[in-house]
Amino acid sequence: MKISLDAMGGDRAPAMVIQGAGIALKRFPQARFLIFGDETQVRPLLKEMPAVDAVSELRHTPDLVSGDAKPSIALRSSRNSSMRLAIDAVRNGEVDGVVSAGNTGALMAIAKFVLKTIPGIDRPAIAGFFPTLVGESVMLDLGANVECDANNLVQFAVMGDAFARTVLGVRLPSFGLLNVGSEELKGHDELRTAAAILRAGPLADQFQGFVEGNDITGGRTDIIVTDGFTGNIALKTAEGTARLYSEFLRGAFKSSLPAKLGYVLAKHAIQKVRDRTDPRRYNGAMFLGLNGIVVKSHGGTDGIGFANAVGVAIDMATNAINDRIRDELAQVNAVKPTEAPAG
Amino acid sequence: MKISLDAMGGDRAPAMVIQGAGIALKRFPQARFLIFGDETQVRPLLKEMPAVDAVSELRHTPDLVSGDAKPSIALRSSRNSSMRLAIDAVRNGEVDGVVSAGNTGALMAIAKFVLKTIPGIDRPAIAGFFPTLVGESVMLDLGANVECDANNLVQFAVMGDAFARTVLGVRLPSFGLLNVGSEELKGHDELRTAAAILRAGPLADQFQGFVEGNDITGGRTDIIVTDGFTGNIALKTAEGTARLYSEFLRGAFKSSLPAKLGYVLAKHAIQKVRDRTDPRRYNGAMFLGLNGIVVKSHGGTDGIGFANAVGVAIDMATNAINDRIRDELAQVNAVKPTEAPAG
Repeated sequence: MKISLDAMGGDRAPAMVIQGAGIALKRFPQARFLIFGDETQVRPLLKEMPAVDAVSELRHTPDLVSGDAKPSIALRSSRNSSMRLAIDAVRNGEVDGVVSAGNTGALMAIAKFVLKTIPGIDRPAIAGFFPTLVGESVMLDLGANVECDANNLVQFAVMGDAFARTVLGVRLPSFGLLNVGSEELKGHDELRTAAAILRAGPLADQFQGFVEGNDITGGRTDIIVTDGFTGNIALKTAEGTARLYSEFLRGAFKSSLPAKLGYVLAKHAIQKVRDRTDPRRYNGAMFLGLNGIVVKSHGGTDGIGFANAVGVAIDMATNAINDRIRDELAQVNAVKPTEAPAG
Repeated sequence: MKISLDAMGGDRAPAMVIQGAGIALKRFPQARFLIFGDETQVRPLLKEMPAVDAVSELRHTPDLVSGDAKPSIALRSSRNSSMRLAIDAVRNGEVDGVVSAGNTGALMAIAKFVLKTIPGIDRPAIAGFFPTLVGESVMLDLGANVECDANNLVQFAVMGDAFARTVLGVRLPSFGLLNVGSEELKGHDELRTAAAILRAGPLADQFQGFVEGNDITGGRTDIIVTDGFTGNIALKTAEGTARLYSEFLRGAFKSSLPAKLGYVLAKHAIQKVRDRTDPRRYNGAMFLGLNGIVVKSHGGTDGIGFANAVGVAIDMATNAINDRIRDELAQVNAVKPTEAPAG
């Protein structure tokens, strides 16, 4: 199991990347790394972590993709960047997947260009995990496609299903389309058309119809399917709300002497809540629909978060997620109506 | 100050409505109520609350709008419903505003038909309060308009501005357009066109450009402007996340003896957090852009929540929010370019 790492992406790169590799290695001792980055910066970090050094190959890259580079420009001008070469290693078959904490738009543009989409998938999607009242859910798309038509949404459902079956190990994952109400006539045309296609297809038994924003963390379905605009707003709204709650709580425990004492007593239990809602735990957004495994780490994360993103890539590779997506697409296409039913 | 109440709307109506009126009356002793509902149910409730009874007039209504009625059908067939007659009272000048916890779609459809939109406003919007790290923000639209063009969004900004100035008392409220990134080229065409119009208009100094999902509770701007689809998803995602956090915490405090003791000590401080994030505190969604004040209470709320919705209606009426919207529209139209700038 070999993963290429873009050592230069992320706010605290490259130190956080190498630390993350070290943490991931403890959890996945079989992991091997192909690291792309500035040798003068990365070599000393590897020297400090001999366990990582022993299982890694470092390749010097003169360029990097900056966090604010426009995707189209990054695609044209970054042939020698750590991000581009780490993705090239997936295409060349040198590694089983790539992890980068760099510029999301650039990573998607380069990954699409280098790896191409799986036949039958028009557009790749970004998927991520959410904590729920009953476990975990997966939502896609989280921002790759600002506008989606009904067929894109149907393909996202197929990819989400393949992902939940293999990586999450759910036998018949349930899924819903994110909408502003559960009634059949709600929402945009694309949503109603996608719902009609899904109800007539092989995933009909798993399709729970329309779900609402509160169902994302409510855990009503294993998978939530949405366009990249809505998914991104929902993701960031959830992050912001969790932060608000956490800050309010922090303030409360400092507000009086009894509260401070209470905190000391309940600290262990509160820490468990922090762990369950820790964004680092859910770090590692999956780019689904490409001929290769690409995982995007949050740019602002630390080594613990980056290690989780590496773990996601290893899980996806171990479970051969892309073979599963290809199989499911074949099944869906075998029974797919030639025309979308009237919305 | 007289408010009409739809006594039959909401899961726990009519008891919750009359309780809410009682709680609101303690806060606003000048309030008077015109109550529409089933006399046989409401009269006994008023008998139990003589303070409310003393300042209320009850009008018997034979019909009610059910929670799952389609708006178009509710509009045609509910001329004698508590909801319709409570709105009619606003148009007739009998009351200063109306509060209902009934079917949102029906309430909006009937309110639009009866009250009409303010000249210069193409579509009314639903606005609501959110707690933030630094205070409170207002977001609109929360679900009245699933699809919005650039001009709708600009009008929402004007209404949000008038609202924040008058009801929140912010002198120069800041506002942003909800998008998937803060860069100028992000998002849908309508967002880019709306941004260009706003940058060229009289609200340019208050316009902070694009904001993201985490800014809603982050408090980056006083007002967040978005279409009704996105706003509804964001609202419900925030509600779901707050519930998740709250449930996790509840479980944590029961998980061990030290945690239970800790809870007892920190109870007072934790209650403050619960209060600050209590959905009842933010209950009362404002329908902005109509010739009359209409406030929608959450259908599942209790008397405390309903009382807050009544408080919102009283605040809006006291501050003559609709006169302010008319004034601002006149200013915006005075300098508005005849053509929207190219996106």
